[in-house]
Amino acid sequence: MKATVIKNGILLTPGQPAEKKDIRIEGTSITRIEPDLEPLDEDHVVDAAGRLVTPGFVNTHTHTGSTLLRGAGGGLPLQEWLKNVMWPAEGQFTSDTVRAASNLAMAEMIRSGTTMFMDMYHLDMLHLAERVTEVGMKAVLGRGMIALDGRWTERLKESETLIQAIEADTSGLVQAAVSPHALYTCPPDFIYKAAELADQYDVVRHTHMSETASEVSDHLAKHGITPCRHLYELGFLTPQTVLAHAVHVTEEDTILLQESGASISHNPRSNLKLGSGIAPISRMLEADIRIGIGTDSAASNNRLSVLSDMQTAAILHTGAEENSTAVQPADWLRAAWRTGASMLGFSNTGELKTGKAADIVLLRTDRLHMSPDLEQRAEDHLLYAAESSDVTDVWCNGRALMREGTLLTIDEEKVRAEAESEWRKIAESTS
Amino acid sequence: MKATVIKNGILLTPGQPAEKKDIRIEGTSITRIEPDLEPLDEDHVVDAAGRLVTPGFVNTHTHTGSTLLRGAGGGLPLQEWLKNVMWPAEGQFTSDTVRAASNLAMAEMIRSGTTMFMDMYHLDMLHLAERVTEVGMKAVLGRGMIALDGRWTERLKESETLIQAIEADTSGLVQAAVSPHALYTCPPDFIYKAAELADQYDVVRHTHMSETASEVSDHLAKHGITPCRHLYELGFLTPQTVLAHAVHVTEEDTILLQESGASISHNPRSNLKLGSGIAPISRMLEADIRIGIGTDSAASNNRLSVLSDMQTAAILHTGAEENSTAVQPADWLRAAWRTGASMLGFSNTGELKTGKAADIVLLRTDRLHMSPDLEQRAEDHLLYAAESSDVTDVWCNGRALMREGTLLTIDEEKVRAEAESEWRKIAESTS
Ligand SMILES: [Zn+2]
Ligand SMILES: [Zn+2]
Repeated sequence: MKATVIKNGILLTPGQPAEKKDIRIEGTSITRIEPDLEPLDEDHVVDAAGRLVTPGFVNTHTHTGSTLLRGAGGGLPLQEWLKNVMWPAEGQFTSDTVRAASNLAMAEMIRSGTTMFMDMYHLDMLHLAERVTEVGMKAVLGRGMIALDGRWTERLKESETLIQAIEADTSGLVQAAVSPHALYTCPPDFIYKAAELADQYDVVRHTHMSETASEVSDHLAKHGITPCRHLYELGFLTPQTVLAHAVHVTEEDTILLQESGASISHNPRSNLKLGSGIAPISRMLEADIRIGIGTDSAASNNRLSVLSDMQTAAILHTGAEENSTAVQPADWLRAAWRTGASMLGFSNTGELKTGKAADIVLLRTDRLHMSPDLEQRAEDHLLYAAESSDVTDVWCNGRALMREGTLLTIDEEKVRAEAESEWRKIAESTS
Repeated sequence: MKATVIKNGILLTPGQPAEKKDIRIEGTSITRIEPDLEPLDEDHVVDAAGRLVTPGFVNTHTHTGSTLLRGAGGGLPLQEWLKNVMWPAEGQFTSDTVRAASNLAMAEMIRSGTTMFMDMYHLDMLHLAERVTEVGMKAVLGRGMIALDGRWTERLKESETLIQAIEADTSGLVQAAVSPHALYTCPPDFIYKAAELADQYDVVRHTHMSETASEVSDHLAKHGITPCRHLYELGFLTPQTVLAHAVHVTEEDTILLQESGASISHNPRSNLKLGSGIAPISRMLEADIRIGIGTDSAASNNRLSVLSDMQTAAILHTGAEENSTAVQPADWLRAAWRTGASMLGFSNTGELKTGKAADIVLLRTDRLHMSPDLEQRAEDHLLYAAESSDVTDVWCNGRALMREGTLLTIDEEKVRAEAESEWRKIAESTS
């Protein structure tokens, strides 16, 4: 494999001034970062003059299988939306639906600079594990488990099968998670068994927690403790646990999260659109709880762009707390890059450093909305002005997934056509 | 002037299903809207197949003159930011700075589908009035007046000169406003005189109101009434009054706003980024107070895209109120189009209808983030997924300002270069 040298780009490191430096990629890794790096004759040289260079964005919570429901039933009350739009459609999903959906999701994620994602879904995850490595992204995949019907053994067995398949994969791109859907869809004893399974294979645990106020009050009424304390008492909270949402967490919950080392996927656009609320992120950051950025599904976002969710977060909390310094800008870049990656068990990426995996994104900056004074204000332009469509190039583990706006490992036209035709089938069978 | 026929586009009307219809533009107006409109031989035909067709977006509050401060000093506390970044820089602004800034602003606004804006600034507005008509946008321009130094007559005279110059303009594109900056920068007696001036010329009144909690509590401490009641008692609130922000308004303020017919520019991205808070929009909409969407300045946004502010608003209030139906999606489209235009005194635009001004935007939809099921979900895709860069074509008053992604009335490269060089001069003189 030829080495690649990315020349003349403007490198962003959270909280530091942007710097013009060159990057050498050999195999899967960044091997050198220096000003004026001299390429060898046989190197592949990429001119990144005027481009921002960042680590790949990390999506800490999504459901790629439901991407075809993007924008379906907007403006309905939550329960109506679930009962009349989401569930009838999902009830009709086949492997073909879910494959089309995941391809659409991965294409959009690469196009918006995302190189890694955590996926929880109940259909076709074995196939997705293969597909991710073909496409060349990094992913943590968990079989989403709802255990209200008593078929616990079957659910856990499916999870284990997925874990074993992923353990056999040698690409280094895929990891497994044990993913009970939530405490309100899984009895406590099942959560306990899920934790045992995660322990057995030493993999990430992933679940939804305290997304809405009613979820928490219902749980309190039924069990007398918060979902967070319940997960804590069940032994589900560890440094390998990623909790999606944590919108409605108490001060005491925060202490339990801190103590356990569990981390939070903050999904601001989904939380806002669905009317779930605003997670107390500054309080959790002060307690040194790790925060990553997730999109949740396209059905409730409607984007699958971590850049966009990061940008929403960057203005949301200063506004909601009426404090322009509630969270420092650099903290959002850390969340979207290194912290997110470490939460997902990939400790060797999320920053532009020698020896780290070559998960790298270029963004064009010859844009009205990034003018003027690009280099001095690079971090601000990225956090408050850039668009997903400014992303031009993406490498994941040293492999180019997008160059100059063209996806290299996914046929974008085909993906859109299949999304459309698969959706037609669902629409016809549910109308 | 040849007529233009826009063929095969998907027309959006708030709250209605999207429809495939063709539009005929003659002169400055839409003269026909029908399915399968047959163009005449001499007509200019635009193929909009697969494009969304919308009215031009309306920016109800901005300060184009400060656009070169986009992204300067992010992450600082508000007072530090004003004292150490904004004011020293603005103190150095020349006509050249402000002209470069306004050109950059107009270019970005057109590129993101905005055809009309309300501008409040203290420098070079006479020139801007001419420049707007050259560029071909619609604007309401007010000389921003701060009256702490006692030079009241001078300020009011400058406003009157601008009004008279605009009255002499025959393009139909520009209107004047009387724009005292705010009650905390203008003594009550000055506000009263400003209202008299607006009455004399029958023009829009525009001011900032109740942006931050401290602004309101300071005013209460000093005057014993809220800024809103104070403006009401001064006779400043009329159906021709546009108030920027209204973040911290009481229930009683809402009644006064309703009674007076004054309207509100909601500027969510600026309010969030600066830590000002979240305006009670659903309460004001329930009281039939007109709400438009503003960007405020690039210094506090950092975008000048009404589309982006509208999208932020569309998820913000459902989230903050924890109610997914707090505001209906279609209400945001009305705010960004027809209501905004009517607030600014342009009643003959903001909707795609025969007889209305041809202020029209096309957006491409062959995007992963608008897949699948475009036609059924057009409104949702626009509100929750589209990017400013999806805008391809813009007409204002029948004149094409952008075609297939190329600005026709502004030299974009030159605008970016001048923004950069003018900013360098300021940076050098303030460092
Ligand atoms: Zn989820
Ligand atoms: Zn303002």
